[in-house]
Amino acid sequence: MADERFTCGLEAALFVVSGKWKPLILFHLSMGARRYGELRRMVGGVSDKVLIQQLKELQADGAVMRVDHGEIPPKVEYSLTGFGASIVTALSPLCEWGGRHLNEIETIANGRQRLREAQAA
Amino acid sequence: MADERFTCGLEAALFVVSGKWKPLILFHLSMGARRYGELRRMVGGVSDKVLIQQLKELQADGAVMRVDHGEIPPKVEYSLTGFGASIVTALSPLCEWGGRHLNEIETIANGRQRLREAQAA
Repeated sequence: MADERFTCGLEAALFVVSGKWKPLILFHLSMGARRYGELRRMVGGVSDKVLIQQLKELQADGAVMRVDHGEIPPKVEYSLTGFGASIVTALSPLCEWGGRHLNEIETIANGRQRLREAQAA
Repeated sequence: MADERFTCGLEAALFVVSGKWKPLILFHLSMGARRYGELRRMVGGVSDKVLIQQLKELQADGAVMRVDHGEIPPKVEYSLTGFGASIVTALSPLCEWGGRHLNEIETIANGRQRLREAQAA
């Protein structure tokens, strides 16, 4: 069963990056290690609870590491692992595609929402 | 509100391709137009109900088109639109990345499942 979990490489990749804030977290960390407060400001619009949860999952998945510099006052940073950096590289074309087609995708999303509302009415 | 739906291009892209069978459908159609029965055999392991639903969503989103050749007996084929073909191109590196890291991602998925089971117990 375990080796039939994913029907293709893409489905496996989407399993790792799915999570509303995960792609953004990965992109910001791809610019360099960040302290929690810095990362939170860069990501924006996310609650501490959710951001911490998504960071924990990315750490558990081996994409992000938490580096405690052992200093006083404490200095803790998050950075990408090699595995995490390789995801960001693979995600870049999709990110650019989404950016180029943002207006079309907004229209698609609005259409789906109207359809759902019409079905619920 | 509508123009703040997505926090980045990647999130917009993931909105279009999210759906267990959508990436596979897009990849198979990128090889050329397919009749429904052919596509169903290529995708494999999916019910008619689900495959038809995913095809309808991809059509509604402008990624796939249904071509009725107007012949008797009827000949209907599905193929990618230009928009759909551009998604496939952008998805390729992520697909390859997932294929290269399939074993690691299986391990990640198993770890998440064990964690969920431990939390539920």
